[in-house]
Amino acid sequence: MASGWFYLSCMVLGSLGSMCILFTAYWMQYWRGGFAWDGTVLMFNWHPVLMVAGMVVLYGAASLVYRLPSSWVGPRLPWKVLHAALHLLAFTCTVVGLIAVFRFHNHSRIAHLYSLHSWLGITTVVLFACQWFLGFAVFLLPWASQWLRSLLKPLHVFFGACILSLSITSVISGVNEKLFFVLKNATKPYSSLPGEAVFANSTGLLVVAFGLLVLYVLLASSWKRPDPGALTDRQPLLHDRE
Amino acid sequence: MASGWFYLSCMVLGSLGSMCILFTAYWMQYWRGGFAWDGTVLMFNWHPVLMVAGMVVLYGAASLVYRLPSSWVGPRLPWKVLHAALHLLAFTCTVVGLIAVFRFHNHSRIAHLYSLHSWLGITTVVLFACQWFLGFAVFLLPWASQWLRSLLKPLHVFFGACILSLSITSVISGVNEKLFFVLKNATKPYSSLPGEAVFANSTGLLVVAFGLLVLYVLLASSWKRPDPGALTDRQPLLHDRE
Repeated sequence: MASGWFYLSCMVLGSLGSMCILFTAYWMQYWRGGFAWDGTVLMFNWHPVLMVAGMVVLYGAASLVYRLPSSWVGPRLPWKVLHAALHLLAFTCTVVGLIAVFRFHNHSRIAHLYSLHSWLGITTVVLFACQWFLGFAVFLLPWASQWLRSLLKPLHVFFGACILSLSITSVISGVNEKLFFVLKNATKPYSSLPGEAVFANSTGLLVVAFGLLVLYVLLASSWKRPDPGALTDRQPLLHDRE
Repeated sequence: MASGWFYLSCMVLGSLGSMCILFTAYWMQYWRGGFAWDGTVLMFNWHPVLMVAGMVVLYGAASLVYRLPSSWVGPRLPWKVLHAALHLLAFTCTVVGLIAVFRFHNHSRIAHLYSLHSWLGITTVVLFACQWFLGFAVFLLPWASQWLRSLLKPLHVFFGACILSLSITSVISGVNEKLFFVLKNATKPYSSLPGEAVFANSTGLLVVAFGLLVLYVLLASSWKRPDPGALTDRQPLLHDRE
């Protein structure tokens, strides 16, 4: 029954995540002229799609690998490799998404990294890189002791959740900024809520809903690998202590 | 020793939180003309200060009441009352902050609630109101059974953390939006990073740092009321299960 609910959540997460990517791509295709890899604003259009796909959807999926009931039994190494590989794929999308915006800025002689969106976004990507390398070095390579792993694991989970939160914050500030940039038309400004504004605002809220559901499954649900030493095998991370 | 670290964290949190409010107020006073309650943009200036003070700093302080070691012993009711009262104070600041922006919009004939910042911000405030009333009804009023409280408590903690995350997201998108609104001067645009932009961007990152530290103490630290039934009395919420 519990794993039935888990797979239902997975279906909801899969649908929400796909919608986040498809809606962002549709926004760029239908209202912003589509995609190219030529330094123009059509190259910029890859940026929102790849950041949502990499830093939010793939990152969220990679985070939840250990919540799959099939990961609860048998050797952990294949699941660790899958966790690291999916995060590496997410990071690759992110880097290509950054190249898209940097090359567009170079081509159009726009300054780099001046807005709060960009400051927070680049901080989040740097934290993601540090988290991946530290996770790889401590949890995947064989040298670290069990003591060190136990010490770092709660921090790894906490910073993993923080990075997803910061990614969502970066996405929301980026969508907001983009809409103020492009909806300046005097007859149909952002403030008159044209179709594009309603669509992109809704896509932003969809990204928030996806992120919160990932965080719920990660932190507060009872879908965790049973701990043979624990009092109960279905104790959530955010459990009742009082 | 552990409570020494806790009080050190409290000092850091108190300093960071005060700096978040003071820096936002200084930004509004020094670069944006100061404060008034007259419907003009000087009335708007209360909005960022009150939202940072209410939805982030006071909210964060209210969330951490049960992490105070002095709350671990003796009756829980006074601490519950303090938790609810501080959150009510945070909510009051928030409502006054919303009045400031709505009256400014009315006075200047600006549309309400069109940007993604405003959609997310108002969603966060509505979630905060629901969370407060549900918390008051279930955890403070005496009718609810222990079973219901145990069932709802992890959700209450999870949504409490979510609301703080969404508040930070709203603050970041709001600061970003405000800077694009006001730094349009052709000789000193936002993209040339004038003093105001560096100061306000840094204030935004300070709000993020404060929020993450609150979430760490709330979710991942071992500073929790000891559970007499638990194997250990210093088990964090984000503990090692594998």
